[in-house]
Amino acid sequence: MPLLPARAEFTARYFVESSTPSEQAAEVIAGEQSSGTFMALPGETADLKTRSRARVVRVDALAPVTQPSLPSALVDRRPHDGVFHRAHVEIAFPVDNVGTNLPSLLATMAGNLFELGEITGLRLLDFDLPPAYAAAFGGPSFGIDGTRKLAHVFGRPMIGTIIKPSVGLSAQQTAELVDSLCAAGIDFIKDDELNADPVYAPFEQRLQAVMPVLHRHADRLGRMPMYAINISGSIDEMLRRHDAVVKAGGTCVMVSLNWVGFAGVAHLRRHTQVPIHGHRNGWGAFTRDESLGFAFEAYQKLWRLAGADHLHVNGIRSKFWEPDASVIRSARACLAPFAGLAPLMPVFSSGQWAGQAPDLYAQLHSTDLMHLAGGGIIGHPGGIAAGVASMRESWEAAVLGVDLESYAQTHPALRAALTHFGSL
Amino acid sequence: MPLLPARAEFTARYFVESSTPSEQAAEVIAGEQSSGTFMALPGETADLKTRSRARVVRVDALAPVTQPSLPSALVDRRPHDGVFHRAHVEIAFPVDNVGTNLPSLLATMAGNLFELGEITGLRLLDFDLPPAYAAAFGGPSFGIDGTRKLAHVFGRPMIGTIIKPSVGLSAQQTAELVDSLCAAGIDFIKDDELNADPVYAPFEQRLQAVMPVLHRHADRLGRMPMYAINISGSIDEMLRRHDAVVKAGGTCVMVSLNWVGFAGVAHLRRHTQVPIHGHRNGWGAFTRDESLGFAFEAYQKLWRLAGADHLHVNGIRSKFWEPDASVIRSARACLAPFAGLAPLMPVFSSGQWAGQAPDLYAQLHSTDLMHLAGGGIIGHPGGIAAGVASMRESWEAAVLGVDLESYAQTHPALRAALTHFGSL
Repeated sequence: MPLLPARAEFTARYFVESSTPSEQAAEVIAGEQSSGTFMALPGETADLKTRSRARVVRVDALAPVTQPSLPSALVDRRPHDGVFHRAHVEIAFPVDNVGTNLPSLLATMAGNLFELGEITGLRLLDFDLPPAYAAAFGGPSFGIDGTRKLAHVFGRPMIGTIIKPSVGLSAQQTAELVDSLCAAGIDFIKDDELNADPVYAPFEQRLQAVMPVLHRHADRLGRMPMYAINISGSIDEMLRRHDAVVKAGGTCVMVSLNWVGFAGVAHLRRHTQVPIHGHRNGWGAFTRDESLGFAFEAYQKLWRLAGADHLHVNGIRSKFWEPDASVIRSARACLAPFAGLAPLMPVFSSGQWAGQAPDLYAQLHSTDLMHLAGGGIIGHPGGIAAGVASMRESWEAAVLGVDLESYAQTHPALRAALTHFGSL
Repeated sequence: MPLLPARAEFTARYFVESSTPSEQAAEVIAGEQSSGTFMALPGETADLKTRSRARVVRVDALAPVTQPSLPSALVDRRPHDGVFHRAHVEIAFPVDNVGTNLPSLLATMAGNLFELGEITGLRLLDFDLPPAYAAAFGGPSFGIDGTRKLAHVFGRPMIGTIIKPSVGLSAQQTAELVDSLCAAGIDFIKDDELNADPVYAPFEQRLQAVMPVLHRHADRLGRMPMYAINISGSIDEMLRRHDAVVKAGGTCVMVSLNWVGFAGVAHLRRHTQVPIHGHRNGWGAFTRDESLGFAFEAYQKLWRLAGADHLHVNGIRSKFWEPDASVIRSARACLAPFAGLAPLMPVFSSGQWAGQAPDLYAQLHSTDLMHLAGGGIIGHPGGIAAGVASMRESWEAAVLGVDLESYAQTHPALRAALTHFGSL
């Protein structure tokens, strides 16, 4: 297809595997996701194509395979040559097909194309928008800078933890745990994603129990530890809970991004007066098959457009499935420029303790992150305060370029962490 | 774990593949998704466990495999015996952990469990809620009966089509096409999912252009063809557009379920005065790997809870990847009882024409469905009216139990369809 006249476009990059040659598969995708369809229609005139038809920008061939990555009944019942072609494909879509409409942007970039019969692998790897178009979505309203200002934590990572047990504590028990964590010098606390409004510890009761504790420590510290309280729920509940948090002097709200959804998070973003801590639970279902779904590079951009401020990226040497290199790549993506929107604060968690800081820093060259440890703080043999101290000391060593064992000689909390967790 | 004292529970069923024995994997999932975590925490007391801990109800072993279905860095770096255990697992969660909270229900049933390192396959197959709990979510407000009443179509499937080209038509061109379709006797028209609010045919203009056409035909027919106009957008836009549709006398709205999200669709459901046509574009990304994501049985229940009234299920012999048996199973799931909530109207589309009706009816034993054909109606050699007639005639034959060839002898529109599309 020849280049079309100048029109604003956004571009999406995919991994595509297909029973047809990759160029043909790319054209089918471009057609299906714009003005074309399976058969030529009289209404798709030349004028309409010029305005609305997506175009294939490039097709970079990869080595083919002889077994399809994904099942397809269509492939099974049609003759094919047993070769499944693979490529990285870039497609440009007219901005005017979509407008400033997040659900339509997704329907266009990530809709029915996943179901096409000749396609046996499809993954949205990344996408780009013209800055003027991206600006219309808004993006993070606090991001890293706004979060640091609210938390009064500068020049180092925010050290945090998660309320555990995940769910089951009463409001009063939660407040007691928050008290211990604040006394220990924590920067950041978050609810578990399972815990939003349980019947035995409703949101309002938890907020009422926790906020006086935070205020008491704020008076003592000159800064309020940031508590990302899980407000996930209906639209009305989330707005009401957000307003209650702000009224009570809280500085952060948390939502389960995938299950609140794009329209809900974007709506919250337009109302929010504090950062949105984005929890990505369920993300594994969208990404764990390398031939399907979404790469994190694309995913984090989608939530940046919706207006999340923080986004989880797992941890290195975690208890989850994800390779360390993938975790680091995800964090880099959060921090990288995207169409003029503010970067996201990456949140490392799962199986974390003081030991990961030097590797994180060596690979990320940044302290603009949250480093959350559950057992790595609460389970420290010297207690919670020593757990928090060990995390900070490890980051000091990392930034100074001093190896942990040496730094630990004059830092007993770190030393105890290395002895205890390093041997697990 | 022994049976816990009586408490209200909901149950979820999974396919689980793991490097550890299935019973152990099931316990890890139950712990991770309730009060437990990777390490024993002092706060998880016996009382708290009784209240909050999920329990493994049953583990039905399947044949193991020697290659993991999904990659896991944790499996790669830990010693294991090279056997990946497979099972169907049922887990019961306390209702009180979640309350009437759709995002929390998802975070619990379908959250971080997808990321667990020892898990190399995980799919939410199905779930069940106690009826009293399900009732609190609301469910479909129109469903099949409410849709039929609004469309005045009874005792047969609703025959429909999709505005094509998918995107690119002006508002006026759309209205002209709608006019032709209504003149041809169509029951139902939907926007393409790509087409919500394009810059050259904004939603308001499309609505203004289309509604007088629908009213004109309604006056003629004594019933208004149902037009599912795509209102997908921000929360404010969707409510405003819904209200504009209702004010203009429209009888249906459509949204891209996955990209509006659960909170957004449930919010719309609380406001809506017309049925919500649920488009599942993007669904392929959640289901096409059999070892990952969601089975449709679970998916349709989630959207029933959120309040969708219609849900797409693809078509048999379609141009998509899905096997026919899976399409039929999906439609059955939409029509099946679920905790006292109204059934969903299944929507068959993609590559459809008159030819599929007998097989659909033979397998589904129901006419409570929408049967949408694009090319199968617009591309009929006798024109659009003959295309619509051929679909109705085919369903008449199916219900009468007369084979199509015989019925076609006295029904020329059907005969032309069989000749034209049957040879493609």
